[in-house]
Amino acid sequence: MTDERLARLALSQLGEPGDLRIAGLVAELGPTRLYDALLSDRDPRGVLTDVAARLERAHPERDLDRAARRGIRWVVPGDPEWPASLADLEGCEPLHEMGGVPLGLWVRGPLRLDQLVDPVAIVGCRSATTYGTDQATELAASLARTGSAVVSGAAFGIDQAAHRGALAGDGATVAVLACGVDRAYPAAHQQLLDHLADHGAVVSELAPGCAPMRTRFLARNRVIAALGRGTVVVEAARRSGALNTASWASRIHRPVMGVPGPVTSATSEGVHALIRSGGATLVTRPEDVLELVGAMGSHLVDEPRGPTRRRDGLSHRQRQVLEAVPVGSPAPSDSIARTAGMGLVAVRSALNGLLRRDLVVHSPRGWRLADGADRD
Amino acid sequence: MTDERLARLALSQLGEPGDLRIAGLVAELGPTRLYDALLSDRDPRGVLTDVAARLERAHPERDLDRAARRGIRWVVPGDPEWPASLADLEGCEPLHEMGGVPLGLWVRGPLRLDQLVDPVAIVGCRSATTYGTDQATELAASLARTGSAVVSGAAFGIDQAAHRGALAGDGATVAVLACGVDRAYPAAHQQLLDHLADHGAVVSELAPGCAPMRTRFLARNRVIAALGRGTVVVEAARRSGALNTASWASRIHRPVMGVPGPVTSATSEGVHALIRSGGATLVTRPEDVLELVGAMGSHLVDEPRGPTRRRDGLSHRQRQVLEAVPVGSPAPSDSIARTAGMGLVAVRSALNGLLRRDLVVHSPRGWRLADGADRD
Repeated sequence: MTDERLARLALSQLGEPGDLRIAGLVAELGPTRLYDALLSDRDPRGVLTDVAARLERAHPERDLDRAARRGIRWVVPGDPEWPASLADLEGCEPLHEMGGVPLGLWVRGPLRLDQLVDPVAIVGCRSATTYGTDQATELAASLARTGSAVVSGAAFGIDQAAHRGALAGDGATVAVLACGVDRAYPAAHQQLLDHLADHGAVVSELAPGCAPMRTRFLARNRVIAALGRGTVVVEAARRSGALNTASWASRIHRPVMGVPGPVTSATSEGVHALIRSGGATLVTRPEDVLELVGAMGSHLVDEPRGPTRRRDGLSHRQRQVLEAVPVGSPAPSDSIARTAGMGLVAVRSALNGLLRRDLVVHSPRGWRLADGADRD
Repeated sequence: MTDERLARLALSQLGEPGDLRIAGLVAELGPTRLYDALLSDRDPRGVLTDVAARLERAHPERDLDRAARRGIRWVVPGDPEWPASLADLEGCEPLHEMGGVPLGLWVRGPLRLDQLVDPVAIVGCRSATTYGTDQATELAASLARTGSAVVSGAAFGIDQAAHRGALAGDGATVAVLACGVDRAYPAAHQQLLDHLADHGAVVSELAPGCAPMRTRFLARNRVIAALGRGTVVVEAARRSGALNTASWASRIHRPVMGVPGPVTSATSEGVHALIRSGGATLVTRPEDVLELVGAMGSHLVDEPRGPTRRRDGLSHRQRQVLEAVPVGSPAPSDSIARTAGMGLVAVRSALNGLLRRDLVVHSPRGWRLADGADRD
């Protein structure tokens, strides 16, 4: 039986990122059983006919080895470095028939994905105005200075400004690509990407060497949205790809924010429409962003409106799960799921929400209530 | 016993605009009984001690007469010209300890207050930027062209731009002042105000001759808000008086709208804060405004979400009037009003709503159903 990491690697190369059939089969059978089934020519749900050609070319051990020699690591769910926030993609409503938790992420750079503090996705259009890139740079720099990591897509315009702002603010920044992490797309960003790989992290679902493609950008956007605690759209014309990232963020119930601009600017139209429709909250300052994405209450700015409790605003499901988390000795999530009488996926998602509010703590042995959380 | 119009005139001079005690006593006793009581030295609820000096100087008949000779009319509740929309001020939550329906309004100009079509209040700060005044002018002009009246306060900056835009769009516009309608405040707006008095209406709760005062601006703002079906704040720094008008509008449950601007502009800060807090809807185009303030559903813009019928969303009154519009030969509005058994003002307003939906057509000979409107 194949090692799970290798199975995930091979499976990730069989379909395109965001392939719902493979994500579904992985959830159902587990990566190892699925891969082994495919290898032995069994064809769960008819997926093999599509991927047979790719299956022959899959050499997961060799690929892992080659990547490692180039300083590229393969991070999968269950690894200590795996960012818990990606779990929300499980079972989230598909967009353009894509979705699901990535099978794994290729990572290049010293920044560990499990150690991103209050990461914020900052996205926007490539054909940004000076106003927009100024705003993106300043916002990213301010967030970086307060310790937040900045996630973006390394494209021209807003993305580039966000990464540069984060670097200027001496902060952590992550570029999620729609091609292999060893490739520079756009080519003009070779230096930026090398710099990010030296000081931050360059991430992709796609194996080294893979080329960027339209659908890969759309799938990539869900990773940007899921890595951020919230997504800020700085400038976007109507129908900009940045709005796709915003859709992903709202699908996984993360705050979507928009920076307004002159109504005369076409590159603010998409943002204004989003705010107007209630799809985004208007933000003008880093404090506005932190108020929405920060751990509950930790960044409350302006006048707080009275003492808030960490339990305020919990969803019904989160309360239910919180009741099932032990006070003393940690319990694994499946044991908590049994106690709560809920499904494992729902419980994990709720636990992550509770973790962000500092109501529970997570250790290798499992979950327990945070100190004081039983009184709060 | 004093005539009610005269009683209201005298009472309006006893207290300041928005005096809640007088508004309360008027609601309780009626203007005539209250005034006669005060005249005969009785002192309901101790109000007399404050107003005795002013009572001696009240000469309502003389004032009415003098004003009339200068082309200034005194319009009170119950008059045909009284704008029904002011009734919402009755019992609305006070702001700065002011409120209530005005005892009456002094009006200078040919525009009748009961015939304002879909009036929109456009307000903002005096120290506006070119961006702001451009937006106010364009918005007012576009609204004027669609037939909406524009209400504002004749101040420097946004107010002025709104009035000028409405005039440029050949539309109706009303200036509500915090001093007598015969005075020019600011003095530099003498010409503008004279022009408004020739082509629109200049309105005040304060008798001719009265000077502007801080609290009078605050009370005046409720009249601006109540005359408009909605209030648009174009530019406002934090703590701008325009936000006071917005508060009044939301107190009487009228839509509050805000035009965004560059986040680097201090004069957009108040607007952004209002939108961010949910106190205003972001608007960028006249269509956005009309969608919110237009007769129920009459201005729905953007992509209709499936086949819509022109009759969908008509108000009860509009349906009633539509039934009375002839299919073939046009009829004048008064004949339609007789057929519908409704007042002329209400019928005209409904006809304008129907016109905007292309359900009726208008010609010099009157109104008829639009082609196909009987089948739709």
